[in-house]
Amino acid sequence: MKKVGVIMGSKSDLPVMQEAIEILKSFGITTEVDIVSAHRTPEKMIDYAKNAHKRDIAVIIAGAGGAAHLPGMVASITPLPVIGVPVKSSNSIDGWDSILSILQMPGGVPVATVALNGAKNAGILAAQILGSSDQEILNKILDYKADLKLKVEQSAKDLN
Amino acid sequence: MKKVGVIMGSKSDLPVMQEAIEILKSFGITTEVDIVSAHRTPEKMIDYAKNAHKRDIAVIIAGAGGAAHLPGMVASITPLPVIGVPVKSSNSIDGWDSILSILQMPGGVPVATVALNGAKNAGILAAQILGSSDQEILNKILDYKADLKLKVEQSAKDLN
Amino acid sequence: MKKVGVIMGSKSDLPVMQEAIEILKSFGITTEVDIVSAHRTPEKMIDYAKNAHKRDIAVIIAGAGGAAHLPGMVASITPLPVIGVPVKSSNSIDGWDSILSILQMPGGVPVATVALNGAKNAGILAAQILGSSDQEILNKILDYKADLKLKVEQSAKDLN
Amino acid sequence: MKKVGVIMGSKSDLPVMQEAIEILKSFGITTEVDIVSAHRTPEKMIDYAKNAHKRDIAVIIAGAGGAAHLPGMVASITPLPVIGVPVKSSNSIDGWDSILSILQMPGGVPVATVALNGAKNAGILAAQILGSSDQEILNKILDYKADLKLKVEQSAKDLN
Amino acid sequence: MKKVGVIMGSKSDLPVMQEAIEILKSFGITTEVDIVSAHRTPEKMIDYAKNAHKRDIAVIIAGAGGAAHLPGMVASITPLPVIGVPVKSSNSIDGWDSILSILQMPGGVPVATVALNGAKNAGILAAQILGSSDQEILNKILDYKADLKLKVEQSAKDLN
Amino acid sequence: MKKVGVIMGSKSDLPVMQEAIEILKSFGITTEVDIVSAHRTPEKMIDYAKNAHKRDIAVIIAGAGGAAHLPGMVASITPLPVIGVPVKSSNSIDGWDSILSILQMPGGVPVATVALNGAKNAGILAAQILGSSDQEILNKILDYKADLKLKVEQSAKDLN
Amino acid sequence: MKKVGVIMGSKSDLPVMQEAIEILKSFGITTEVDIVSAHRTPEKMIDYAKNAHKRDIAVIIAGAGGAAHLPGMVASITPLPVIGVPVKSSNSIDGWDSILSILQMPGGVPVATVALNGAKNAGILAAQILGSSDQEILNKILDYKADLKLKVEQSAKDLN
Amino acid sequence: MKKVGVIMGSKSDLPVMQEAIEILKSFGITTEVDIVSAHRTPEKMIDYAKNAHKRDIAVIIAGAGGAAHLPGMVASITPLPVIGVPVKSSNSIDGWDSILSILQMPGGVPVATVALNGAKNAGILAAQILGSSDQEILNKILDYKADLKLKVEQSAKDLN
Repeated sequence: MKKVGVIMGSKSDLPVMQEAIEILKSFGITTEVDIVSAHRTPEKMIDYAKNAHKRDIAVIIAGAGGAAHLPGMVASITPLPVIGVPVKSSNSIDGWDSILSILQMPGGVPVATVALNGAKNAGILAAQILGSSDQEILNKILDYKADLKLKVEQSAKDLN
Repeated sequence: MKKVGVIMGSKSDLPVMQEAIEILKSFGITTEVDIVSAHRTPEKMIDYAKNAHKRDIAVIIAGAGGAAHLPGMVASITPLPVIGVPVKSSNSIDGWDSILSILQMPGGVPVATVALNGAKNAGILAAQILGSSDQEILNKILDYKADLKLKVEQSAKDLN
Repeated sequence: MKKVGVIMGSKSDLPVMQEAIEILKSFGITTEVDIVSAHRTPEKMIDYAKNAHKRDIAVIIAGAGGAAHLPGMVASITPLPVIGVPVKSSNSIDGWDSILSILQMPGGVPVATVALNGAKNAGILAAQILGSSDQEILNKILDYKADLKLKVEQSAKDLN
Repeated sequence: MKKVGVIMGSKSDLPVMQEAIEILKSFGITTEVDIVSAHRTPEKMIDYAKNAHKRDIAVIIAGAGGAAHLPGMVASITPLPVIGVPVKSSNSIDGWDSILSILQMPGGVPVATVALNGAKNAGILAAQILGSSDQEILNKILDYKADLKLKVEQSAKDLN
Repeated sequence: MKKVGVIMGSKSDLPVMQEAIEILKSFGITTEVDIVSAHRTPEKMIDYAKNAHKRDIAVIIAGAGGAAHLPGMVASITPLPVIGVPVKSSNSIDGWDSILSILQMPGGVPVATVALNGAKNAGILAAQILGSSDQEILNKILDYKADLKLKVEQSAKDLN
Repeated sequence: MKKVGVIMGSKSDLPVMQEAIEILKSFGITTEVDIVSAHRTPEKMIDYAKNAHKRDIAVIIAGAGGAAHLPGMVASITPLPVIGVPVKSSNSIDGWDSILSILQMPGGVPVATVALNGAKNAGILAAQILGSSDQEILNKILDYKADLKLKVEQSAKDLN
Repeated sequence: MKKVGVIMGSKSDLPVMQEAIEILKSFGITTEVDIVSAHRTPEKMIDYAKNAHKRDIAVIIAGAGGAAHLPGMVASITPLPVIGVPVKSSNSIDGWDSILSILQMPGGVPVATVALNGAKNAGILAAQILGSSDQEILNKILDYKADLKLKVEQSAKDLN
Repeated sequence: MKKVGVIMGSKSDLPVMQEAIEILKSFGITTEVDIVSAHRTPEKMIDYAKNAHKRDIAVIIAGAGGAAHLPGMVASITPLPVIGVPVKSSNSIDGWDSILSILQMPGGVPVATVALNGAKNAGILAAQILGSSDQEILNKILDYKADLKLKVEQSAKDLN
């Protein structure tokens, strides 16, 4: 089965990005995790983006904060879908810079952006992308949604 | 081959959403286009979201403006990946409402958000999702990127 | 006498929404409280919205945070007035996403939006709506306003 | 039957506020329209707010732009529900000032705020408030919603 | 000598507004402090605004937070200059609502707005207004400015 | 009688600032108009600010756009009250830069800020400042307010 | 003498960036102009950034709009000072995305950001950088400033 | 060798500005540090700006918060490049005022703005400016970049 690549600009993004890794694990999907900085290791980034699709990676999740260029730059090179996670890092202005510099990509180079610090949703989205051509994963997504529903119903019961 | 579902909340979103349809057509990907309003046809929306994955749709692109609930509501029901296009509609506050009400989904229900009015990128992203398990489409994405590069190089030449 | 329905997207919204319940209780108005999630229990939400007006509910108060779709989606189905409370939840961007995704509803489907975390005011507004056809409740509102005035006058005296 | 009071801060708000008057007329609901300025006729405003509930007005719709104090000031005096329409007037900063100065009312004094320039929705909301104790109006709201649905379904047919 | 009226919407604004009172005291200017709420004591507010100029008040400083209507409403009635202090109160959205609902007054009714929580500057501005027709106070302002300069020069020396 | 100094950073600000000059003229108050640029004629600006109070100027109105330093810099030097007019100039980001760089002055150096492009209100505020020690001008302000009221009442009559 | 490199992400940025080229020409400074897209020609960008300092370029001016990655990516590779011009392109949200994705660079990789569409200032800044080690250019800057002053003084004369 | 002037509006800006001083020290570049307030010592500021280039200062770094006029005012007088550091001071609105009042300078007077609290980057940028005409410093910048890369590579190894 294909894997999901999870990269981030700095080790300090790991606590946020960990949620993507864990939810993918819970779906039984393999991840390949790395630190790749657009601004400090631009050549490693280019290498990564050029070759990811050649070694069984099907989707890339990239998290970064502030003037967050990693998701967009990787997306400019790889033919794979790239999911961007805007991280509310310590140098970010309430997350607005992270969001806008990932979301507002020019025509031709999309980044699938999720909510601020939304790494868990990035993981689910990656699973949905794999699931769009893999019935087994699709079923796991359906189970996951059923489980979300049960939890809300339980908390509604607890309330009354 | 699987199709891409393209839905929008109102006929007035069509000029923006047309770009998704056209770019997908250029990749040879079939689209199924419909008007589905979260606020005016909620039951049709639920039906749509429940059944899309049962009739060969692999990805859903949903465009809406203002308090844009269509992408997130469809994503809450379908197991498929949903791409949200924030539309800068006439009643939108410079697009901020469209963006935030699509992007900021709670944990468990991702929407792959693209730039404001970024329907073209939504189409490319849908193609990339199909391409992550279909070598032929992946190759078309690689060709598309090569073509983007050529156009920039040509315009650089024109400049000098 | 008719009741006020109070719903929220998640148990974590209860501390904010509690203020609506309490102020309504102080006016002697019965509430029916439930957890109904637009994104995790969409069918329960539709059921709720379709039937509320058939069982003596006159007004619905709905609270949610982030990309807050609950108030607008309920309003799209019920003929009753819906009051939306934007909750500044942990995943919200300073509350802006909660406000805009509740307030900026398209023509045809209003949500009566109150201030960020303004559940108390939602309760008062629900009472005013009941009071617009019920002299007894109207009088309680008048008493409540007289009391607000007395408290300010007392604090002005304390100052001097 | 009770009436709806429609007031605005300036004659220049009339083109926006007209939509509230028209939709209410279409529901067969009588309106009483006036220009009442918080900043230029404060005493008329106080008089208006003190006496509206004594002359068969059940709901007040107040529209204003910029530092928009009319809805909140009227709400501070009347026991009736007040619907605020933020108007994107010529001196407004993209509507943000109008929205925030109407929406962000302190605890004790709610204003039911609708979208920027959302006078039509203000009219519908006023009808829903009357409808919460008047079965005939409630039925008209249900008809209105059925009609919205038909229009979307028709435009979906036109598309295909 | 004329006095400065200092009013605020709630006792909770006092810690911020205290700075205006203290700096005016340091200039030897008498203040008259009161709690006057636009939304909870509208009639007291009107009385205050109508009569302030008749009892030796020359300038009014008004502080309020959230949908802050007090400065603008007082300014709509009194012929005196009104200085507005946007207070970053607990229910304010980072202060933006306080600022915009005080600053963005319509043509005809100015409020002299100072920085968020800028009560000290409101006091200095009131002193400058008195000083524009009173040489003794003008000289105190000149002394105050000279003192500001000395403090900066001292801290520059401390640095080296 | 004392005069009002009206300065602006560039000739392109004149169409906005003209409103201040005209309203002051209508009150019979003399203005002294000049172009003084903080960034292009810093020494003229310092001279101006140092000497204005020595030649019968009682209040200074300063308009500027973008990173608008003129009002604050003049206020740092003159002991007179300075009224700042944020101008929405062509290089301004919707006026936010003009507003924030005039309003958010540090403790010790107030600028009396009016609404975006609010030069008319700046003129009225200057008249109110003069009027706080001049009964004749105070009466003109009272007349002006009575006239505002009449105009609203007339437009209310026209409506009905 | 050293040159200034002027690059932009797209030919559509040329009307804005032209101002940088012209002001540098007026100072007698040679420019080398090219179109280099971070997202469409990433390898050309890397080449450019790696080699600019080896062929007599002393400063790089880079303009881009939307999620503007060009200035920051070039800055991550070149040892030269990079001046970023946020362009308010057609797909930009009022310029906020362009500004934040250029300005908010992480520690270690500065971009010298100028105002939105501020290409003229980028040119002047580049000249100042050259002038900091070249007395002749420094003198031209001094002359330029003297000229700015003369123009303001002339427009002040015209006014009176 | 030439020096870098580092100035700030208040001693309270020192903890932020210290990072500029330290990184420059690490490059072996001499700094001259001073407190110069645009609003409290305007004449010292003018003196500083007029003379800096006459005493071996090649670049000026100026930090300030709120309505931050120091960088722009110094830039209006000196012919040297000025780097502005927006400081998120206690009176700032999340840093937006600091950023906009430094960044949005009018045509003719650039300030090289870095990220909010980005003093470290200001120091690196100053070094790059010196390095653009000094091969030894340029080499140090290249070494610094190589070191950034090594650190990221090490943290990537630690992760795996």
